[in-house]
Amino acid sequence: MVTRVAIVGAGPSGLAQLHAFEQARAGGAEIPELVCFEKQDDWGGLWNYTWRSGLDQYGNPCHGSMYRYLWSNGPKECLEFSDYTFEQHFGTAIPSFPPREVLYDYIKGRAEASDVRRHIRFDTAVRWIEYDPARETFDVTVEALAEGASRVEQFDHVIVATGHFSVPNVPDFPGFDRFPGRILHSHDFRDAQEFAGRDLLVVGGSYSAEDIALQAKKYGANSVTISYRTAPMGFPWPDGIAEVPLLSRLEGRTAHFADGSARDVDAIILCTGYQHHFPFVASDLRLRTANVLYPPDLYKGVFWTDNPKMMYLGMQDQFYTFTLFDAEAWVARDFVLGRLELPSREEMEKDVAEWRAREEALPDAFAQIDFQADHIADLMALTDYPAFDLDLTRAHFKKWEHDKEESIIGYRDRGFSSPCTGTPAPIHHTLWWEAHDDSLTTFLRTGHPA
Amino acid sequence: MVTRVAIVGAGPSGLAQLHAFEQARAGGAEIPELVCFEKQDDWGGLWNYTWRSGLDQYGNPCHGSMYRYLWSNGPKECLEFSDYTFEQHFGTAIPSFPPREVLYDYIKGRAEASDVRRHIRFDTAVRWIEYDPARETFDVTVEALAEGASRVEQFDHVIVATGHFSVPNVPDFPGFDRFPGRILHSHDFRDAQEFAGRDLLVVGGSYSAEDIALQAKKYGANSVTISYRTAPMGFPWPDGIAEVPLLSRLEGRTAHFADGSARDVDAIILCTGYQHHFPFVASDLRLRTANVLYPPDLYKGVFWTDNPKMMYLGMQDQFYTFTLFDAEAWVARDFVLGRLELPSREEMEKDVAEWRAREEALPDAFAQIDFQADHIADLMALTDYPAFDLDLTRAHFKKWEHDKEESIIGYRDRGFSSPCTGTPAPIHHTLWWEAHDDSLTTFLRTGHPA
Ligand SMILES: Cc1cc2nc3c(=O)[nH]c(=O)nc-3n(C[C@H](O)[C@H](O)[C@H](O)COP(=O)(O)OP(=O)(O)OC[C@H]3O[C@@H](n4cnc5c(N)ncnc54)[C@H](O)[C@@H]3O)c2cc1C
Ligand SMILES: Cc1cc2nc3c(=O)[nH]c(=O)nc-3n(C[C@H](O)[C@H](O)[C@H](O)COP(=O)(O)OP(=O)(O)OC[C@H]3O[C@@H](n4cnc5c(N)ncnc54)[C@H](O)[C@@H]3O)c2cc1C
Ligand SMILES: NC(=O)c1ccc[n+]([C@@H]2O[C@H](COP(=O)([O-])OP(=O)(O)OC[C@H]3O[C@@H](n4cnc5c(N)ncnc54)[C@H](OP(=O)(O)O)[C@@H]3O)[C@@H](O)[C@H]2O)c1
Ligand SMILES: NC(=O)c1ccc[n+]([C@@H]2O[C@H](COP(=O)([O-])OP(=O)(O)OC[C@H]3O[C@@H](n4cnc5c(N)ncnc54)[C@H](OP(=O)(O)O)[C@@H]3O)[C@@H](O)[C@H]2O)c1
Repeated sequence: MVTRVAIVGAGPSGLAQLHAFEQARAGGAEIPELVCFEKQDDWGGLWNYTWRSGLDQYGNPCHGSMYRYLWSNGPKECLEFSDYTFEQHFGTAIPSFPPREVLYDYIKGRAEASDVRRHIRFDTAVRWIEYDPARETFDVTVEALAEGASRVEQFDHVIVATGHFSVPNVPDFPGFDRFPGRILHSHDFRDAQEFAGRDLLVVGGSYSAEDIALQAKKYGANSVTISYRTAPMGFPWPDGIAEVPLLSRLEGRTAHFADGSARDVDAIILCTGYQHHFPFVASDLRLRTANVLYPPDLYKGVFWTDNPKMMYLGMQDQFYTFTLFDAEAWVARDFVLGRLELPSREEMEKDVAEWRAREEALPDAFAQIDFQADHIADLMALTDYPAFDLDLTRAHFKKWEHDKEESIIGYRDRGFSSPCTGTPAPIHHTLWWEAHDDSLTTFLRTGHPA
Repeated sequence: MVTRVAIVGAGPSGLAQLHAFEQARAGGAEIPELVCFEKQDDWGGLWNYTWRSGLDQYGNPCHGSMYRYLWSNGPKECLEFSDYTFEQHFGTAIPSFPPREVLYDYIKGRAEASDVRRHIRFDTAVRWIEYDPARETFDVTVEALAEGASRVEQFDHVIVATGHFSVPNVPDFPGFDRFPGRILHSHDFRDAQEFAGRDLLVVGGSYSAEDIALQAKKYGANSVTISYRTAPMGFPWPDGIAEVPLLSRLEGRTAHFADGSARDVDAIILCTGYQHHFPFVASDLRLRTANVLYPPDLYKGVFWTDNPKMMYLGMQDQFYTFTLFDAEAWVARDFVLGRLELPSREEMEKDVAEWRAREEALPDAFAQIDFQADHIADLMALTDYPAFDLDLTRAHFKKWEHDKEESIIGYRDRGFSSPCTGTPAPIHHTLWWEAHDDSLTTFLRTGHPA
């Protein structure tokens, strides 16, 4: 009987998985039947921008968390596919911090080149996954959303690639039920111009808080107050952005903070992170984790130790993104193809425990960068994902951290060199703080002057 | 073996079902084991207001569609429980159009009086329902949300009472992806003050469009443009509200309409109705219907004709609400208790077809009111739900339609008499258009002058 593999999600991770199998096929391997279920009507995951928020056209949770005018927040060189470079895709070198549409184009480019679209069933949600120990297969209940028709299919392997930045973590604060303005989570944030002229409160101390505060100011907010729980980000903020301790309560439109200060605000954006959320996975197969670099119960960050035919991709907190997903997908593929043997359950658990212990002890962001790079190196040692200069990307990330400290509105104006081709990135024609048009056409004028 | 009944949802419909069983128990009947699953942490369904929108604290779709400053849009006399009157609950007669908090209090009052809370498992979502023909039971997969723990339980009967005004129908229009402001569905609307001073576009031609347009103006919007698809509502709108034909496209913040007119707007609220959405029900048991007075495939509006042990409550478009749910719940109860025999499948289908045909031919709103009153009378003839003056409520609804034509900002200032006690409602101390405080305490000052 032919082996069947279910891949849930056609974002960067799911597409990496399909591509990995197609590469093996191109190399002469026999590959199993692949079925990728994607609940949206197109591929690209979070990079597939939607104006929708809340629930989508089918009444299901809207996956999109990206917003208009979003630019890469890390150097693109640190996520470059080693088997499909930026130069190859765009025909020229491009600057290091592209807007969303440009990275979306790049992701699609590789997926089109390896012709993986035929494996994907769009507008199809996975509703329930459970394991049948008698038949040694997974029962996967899927729903064709346009028809509302559910059915159960059997698979030998399941690879969950549904991302973990789509289901918001939304804390409550006293007075929210009487606040006379909009309260939203960053997941539902779409267009900063809504807040032009307004006084905004942003809660959170990480990437979303940082970028949405800057966006809002860039597009005309009157003021942005950022309220942190653990520590301020401490960047050299432009005028009109300030950091204060945690929100304690609202009284009408007055926000009170832990240090006794207060501020009148018009709207509140909760940049309080996301949940790993798998309502479609039976309890005994369901990953439970916070947003960490090495989640528990996943050997090599991929294999569900209790039943390694169940795999997860991209479930880590992310410095590295696309290259990490690729390395994981290659390793998952090799296990399915029988090219990779896994050790005993005890050994897998011991290995995970060691990585977890190492993560717990990491002193700072530089150590975290090295940790994730080591994870990628560990994966690459198990498979034939094409080599790239991983050490250069470590150095890039550390330089980038430094650039952000130096200028939070200017770090995206720097250029980095490719770990695949060595080419240095050109500098963009417009400073990011002044670039209000984020379209692919305008961005690419760099390489192809108009 | 004891009979087990699963009730999904503890809104007005689910609570009516629990109450109906408790009434039978009080009358000496033996009643089955009841388990009501409620995904929220409290009862009352839509009436349980939340500031949340989009996804809830557990990452599941947020049920709430109600908003601050919402008042009953029909006379409360038309939804009065015949076994628990408003006078009984509040100790005095109260005005006919109470704000949300007051009706919520009333719903809770009866549920507390009959002590149904012990049957409810809160923070528990039903994830999947399917029928096992071999065992003749339903397999119901539920998840305790706080723990993320799923399990399967068997039930002899399932009663779905999850409402149908929680999952928005959200159409797309050209230019939405580039509109520089907020686009939301009425499901996510919470506080009108967000739109003070703004120019608002409302799309839709029914209750939500009507009420949200009025709310927005009442709380300070600069202008409200209502765009209809089929026909204008044609009410005598206050200054600053106008109706135009359907939106054709957005260009930046300029909205263009089917008649060639255009208007600059700051925000767009889609009041485009809701979907009947049962992602947790297997295809063969799943109700598929538009928002109609007599949905297909439900005998007496309740029993799934293909397998009547599967029941639905409150799935009709609603003039009548709580009394309709009660009558349905009483009939469902009697079937479970063996007090009511259902005819053959063919006869049930024929009966539904006749009602459906009658609905198709209804000429106007008055005929629709009579049709739904007839449906209630049909249900009440099958069971012992305490009688009330149904004909008086027909007359009330017709008078109410007339009042709205006469004054859309003034119809809530009228009073109606109780179909249970005959008592006429007192007039509220403040005109609705001027009443900005919608709290229970302020509202009840009518009956208990301060
Ligand atoms: C606001 C924001 C900005 C970001 N910016 C950057 C950046 O600048 N650079 C960067 O490298 N990374 C960025 N990221 C990180 C981002 O998570 C990754 O780049 C990448 O999108 C993760 O890919 P994925 O395939 O694992 O998940 P996703 O991109 O989330 O894709 C998951 C896919 O699974 C589908 N799916 C989910 N549930 C189901 C189901 N039940 N059935 C069927 N299909 C399902 C979804 O529709 C989706 O297509 C950002 C994230 C956010 C939230
Ligand atoms: C904006 C708005 C205003 C309204 N105003 C009025 C009014 O003025 N007067 C009036 O009479 N009616 C009004 N209604 C109509 C309203 O639908 C009814 O009054 C009533 O709330 C319907 O009761 P229900 O129990 O059928 O559904 P709901 O009130 O929707 O309750 C359903 C319950 O099921 C739960 N649930 C859903 N899915 C699951 C699941 N998978 N597992 C477990 N639990 C689940 C929900 O959490 C909820 O508690 C209004 C509706 C809306 C949207
Ligand atoms: N391209 C871009 O510009 C861009 C923009 C936005 C996001 N992203 C990406 O999106 C991903 C998610 O980033 P994120 O910032 O949304 O999530 P995150 O990195 O997980 O950060 C979550 C933040 O929420 C805070 N928080 C959680 N619960 C809180 C509570 N109850 N009260 C107050 N604060 C609370 C946390 O504070 P503590 O520190 O106290 O725990 C933390 O600061 C990242 O991969 C990021 O790179 C990219
Ligand atoms: N207490 C209150 O004040 C209050 C307030 C709001 C709502 N409610 C209740 O909430 C319930 C739901 O009311 P509702 O108005 O949200 O829903 P609804 O009555 O089902 O009306 C849906 C409306 O959306 C329109 N529509 C649907 N698709 C459209 C599209 N693609 N383009 C343009 N218009 C489209 C429909 O137009 P067509 O007519 O062209 O089909 C219709 O006017 C009702 O029970 C109501 O009583 C009560």
